[in-house]
Amino acid sequence: MTDRVDTLVRGTLVNVNTGTLEDRAVAIDDGTIVALEERPAERELEANYVAPGLVDAHMHVESSMVTLPQYGDAVVPRGVTSVVHDPHEIANVAGADGVRAVIRDAERTPLKARFTVPSSVPASDLQDCGAALPSESVTELLDERNVVALGEVMNIPGLLAGDEEVHAKIRAARERGLTVDGHMPRVTGDRLQEAARYLDNDHESISLSEAREKVDVGLRVYLREGSSSKNLGDLLPLVEDVDSRRLSLCTDDREVTDLVDEGGVDFAVRKAVREGADPVEVVQMATINTAESYGLPFGRVQPGAPADIVLLDDLRTWDVDRVLVDGELDPTQDGTPATSTHLPTDTVDFPTVSASDFAITVADGHSSDERIRVIDAVGGLQTDPMITTVPVQEGILIPNPDEDLLSLAVVERHGNDGGIGRGFVHGLGLERGAVGSTVAHDAHNCVVAGADHASMASVANKLRELEGGVVAYDPVDDEFSTLALPIAGLMSNQPIETVYERFEAVESHAGDLGMAETGLMELSFLALEVIPTYRLTNNGLVDVTDGKYVDVTVS
Amino acid sequence: MTDRVDTLVRGTLVNVNTGTLEDRAVAIDDGTIVALEERPAERELEANYVAPGLVDAHMHVESSMVTLPQYGDAVVPRGVTSVVHDPHEIANVAGADGVRAVIRDAERTPLKARFTVPSSVPASDLQDCGAALPSESVTELLDERNVVALGEVMNIPGLLAGDEEVHAKIRAARERGLTVDGHMPRVTGDRLQEAARYLDNDHESISLSEAREKVDVGLRVYLREGSSSKNLGDLLPLVEDVDSRRLSLCTDDREVTDLVDEGGVDFAVRKAVREGADPVEVVQMATINTAESYGLPFGRVQPGAPADIVLLDDLRTWDVDRVLVDGELDPTQDGTPATSTHLPTDTVDFPTVSASDFAITVADGHSSDERIRVIDAVGGLQTDPMITTVPVQEGILIPNPDEDLLSLAVVERHGNDGGIGRGFVHGLGLERGAVGSTVAHDAHNCVVAGADHASMASVANKLRELEGGVVAYDPVDDEFSTLALPIAGLMSNQPIETVYERFEAVESHAGDLGMAETGLMELSFLALEVIPTYRLTNNGLVDVTDGKYVDVTVS
Repeated sequence: MTDRVDTLVRGTLVNVNTGTLEDRAVAIDDGTIVALEERPAERELEANYVAPGLVDAHMHVESSMVTLPQYGDAVVPRGVTSVVHDPHEIANVAGADGVRAVIRDAERTPLKARFTVPSSVPASDLQDCGAALPSESVTELLDERNVVALGEVMNIPGLLAGDEEVHAKIRAARERGLTVDGHMPRVTGDRLQEAARYLDNDHESISLSEAREKVDVGLRVYLREGSSSKNLGDLLPLVEDVDSRRLSLCTDDREVTDLVDEGGVDFAVRKAVREGADPVEVVQMATINTAESYGLPFGRVQPGAPADIVLLDDLRTWDVDRVLVDGELDPTQDGTPATSTHLPTDTVDFPTVSASDFAITVADGHSSDERIRVIDAVGGLQTDPMITTVPVQEGILIPNPDEDLLSLAVVERHGNDGGIGRGFVHGLGLERGAVGSTVAHDAHNCVVAGADHASMASVANKLRELEGGVVAYDPVDDEFSTLALPIAGLMSNQPIETVYERFEAVESHAGDLGMAETGLMELSFLALEVIPTYRLTNNGLVDVTDGKYVDVTVS
Repeated sequence: MTDRVDTLVRGTLVNVNTGTLEDRAVAIDDGTIVALEERPAERELEANYVAPGLVDAHMHVESSMVTLPQYGDAVVPRGVTSVVHDPHEIANVAGADGVRAVIRDAERTPLKARFTVPSSVPASDLQDCGAALPSESVTELLDERNVVALGEVMNIPGLLAGDEEVHAKIRAARERGLTVDGHMPRVTGDRLQEAARYLDNDHESISLSEAREKVDVGLRVYLREGSSSKNLGDLLPLVEDVDSRRLSLCTDDREVTDLVDEGGVDFAVRKAVREGADPVEVVQMATINTAESYGLPFGRVQPGAPADIVLLDDLRTWDVDRVLVDGELDPTQDGTPATSTHLPTDTVDFPTVSASDFAITVADGHSSDERIRVIDAVGGLQTDPMITTVPVQEGILIPNPDEDLLSLAVVERHGNDGGIGRGFVHGLGLERGAVGSTVAHDAHNCVVAGADHASMASVANKLRELEGGVVAYDPVDDEFSTLALPIAGLMSNQPIETVYERFEAVESHAGDLGMAETGLMELSFLALEVIPTYRLTNNGLVDVTDGKYVDVTVS
């Protein structure tokens, strides 16, 4: 029993089992922690603090526009050794095969990705997407390796109304002893009580009272600190109020720039401690609590556990020195080869378009101005309905960038001959040219906004050529800036630094064209037909509150 | 969602998820908690406190000499709605079929019994027992319904030496996602570090430092308050020192008298609070913590959980008013019919014995005194080795009750023609007659101690006639007192009050014969050949430290 081990780490251990700090030696052999005491060792390491590798309780890697291996290169050195990944976006493009491809692709990274099976694909029947995951497909995917849960159940009205598809998916997860993730923004009161009977956790709270109500009814509550939703600051007082064992930290989504500049869930750890929470308790929220939520074997430093260990210079600032995954020191330092042989490419499939494809025509006899319904992008993921007028020229509704009224189009791009939906958007700020993206939640069709239809056609055709991505176009100098996202039209297979630079370049270019700072992010949600109020799908303008198509022109 | 429910309970809820007390209404319908808020209800109940039903983390029902249904009648009204039962004793008598019978028999009680599969049957090869559970049998039993773990792994030397049988059983549990219970008395240091790699919990700590060391290495630690081992008082300070989420309460064994007079794990709850622990934290240790240890769906009051709820007049004294199990109010109040059709009876199988069967003969030429090895029962489960002399008459070693030197015999009773082991015991105090029991850990042969061989034969034959039990016999008035335990020779199928009275009667009778107060309990451990130092099996006297048979006479 006192055989020589391959590695010994000495330092102050963050013991998440006991919730205490202890001076300890951690003996590691063949990838596994074998003892929390001195052993003769081939290699000895010293650290000020020794902590378990962090686990992100809920995230979508697609939000960072990179593959899991590239994501791993970014976060493992920051002490994030595992993520619970919901491949919801790729599922909307490539279905069950896409999910399987992501699971397989994760073998290329030391980052321990565990998976939840997307439960809500498609988001509605108001839009063409690339694939659907009916309950039969979900059930099959639940048996895939490293699957730990049914992914965030979004169809709360269906859940509460007894929708058979929703319940079949939940039953399939329960039969397998798997967790069922919830997605319950602003679900409170009677509806929460009912939903809590079926779901295990939620990461959508934005207010302390909402989070408290959820933890009261037995849900595990994930405090989210992402790029589009930053809730940690508001929710952190919960730690003082209730037993923190039922709380976890997650990112949900991290844009590539935030990921590189600030980190993944390690950023949430740092922020929580900075805001006054006890560091040991915070580490528990990013390790053992999440491990218990999904029955993961890691997330703690104890004999028998995999040696996923972070050596810290400082605990309070989560200042990482070295990282061990399965006993391997700094396993991502050589980086991941860019090429993946598994992930779906060539997923952008629509005929070449021209300016006229984006024109909304009105019948003869109309005035030179037309009253129309406009999606008003008011910041974040929110939109408000807006009624205003645009000029009519030769029977066509003309965008009016002077009043920030841009033409908006959603081009079906999954090869379904689904056509083009047309509308108008206010609030993006673009003064000339066009911007477009094949990242357009959740169906991920091709969304383009522009000050003129010709520029929009140029952008759409460029996206087609790139097999997906994000593009800005300036007609003045006929210049494109592009970030190619050939994997499902959502992700790059390039190193994260390259993606970071290209994304910044497109964003900067769009800024030069007058686009608001958060414009590209807002653009990618304008087609999400399940969030009020107006959204555009490839089938036309949707009033989400009624779940109905409406005309752009006001009769 | 605001449909009428069948039951509404109002009171101060012990919310074990949040670790807080909250004024709440708990709405119950069709056996399930549907909401933690007001609902129109057919039946409304009020309580000062509302808590989840308690879960005993580890127990052997055989210790109480009743069936699970009778045990349920005793503890459900005390707010214990679940037990994790290790049917280790019946397995030693009746093997896998016995375990299956117990699992099936549990359907007769609202008490929610969950099972661990005995991992260590037989305890050794030094004794004949009724059955063995090799790894193949263990593996099959792990698939039985309501099995939640591999039962307490006792063979720590085998575990550490890589014994294939031990590891095969552990692997089988792991493959099924089940917990692996440990049994590590005084295992510390290197051996603990190694054992902790394979085991999930331990309930054998007797000192605070031992318990602290175990929780440090990641084991869940169960604080035990049984009849033969009462460790709660010593271990309770642990709650102040470490995060109590990894601590649970258990009884291990409760004699029928303690069970009726003081309760099951509810007694531990009451005692912990009386000794100063926070009542909410104590309830967590007897509910959600244990539920998490075994992945149980109950042990908390939240929407979707079974309505296993205790209505308390007072929390600090755990003063129970009413109990709901699956929404049914006071489900055991009508009592359980005594007869079980499932459990094994007729398990006591040996030929009629006579006085001469208990005689140890010595060769001619010996003196009138003979130096012998004696088991010295020094209290609790402990024995010390003792060397002394007894008289020899007609070549036979004669017990000497004046010096508390009793004849002791272990009669193989499982129909294996295993014969009789003979020896001597000091410390039981019997002045005349004999006492005997078919409860004789772990092989549960028939153990008899007596002041003369004829009385011992009378007791053994009476036990044979009863199909097992506990018997005292006074030759002066030729009077027996008996508790029949016809189920596997371990348990009665009578109501617990009857068993209580009969056991008290035998104990009182034995006391009249001079027996020490704890004598019957000590008797039942004198054949346990895995606890130092001297023990008697049907094959003879064993020096446990060496794992070898030794002669009674000292050469």
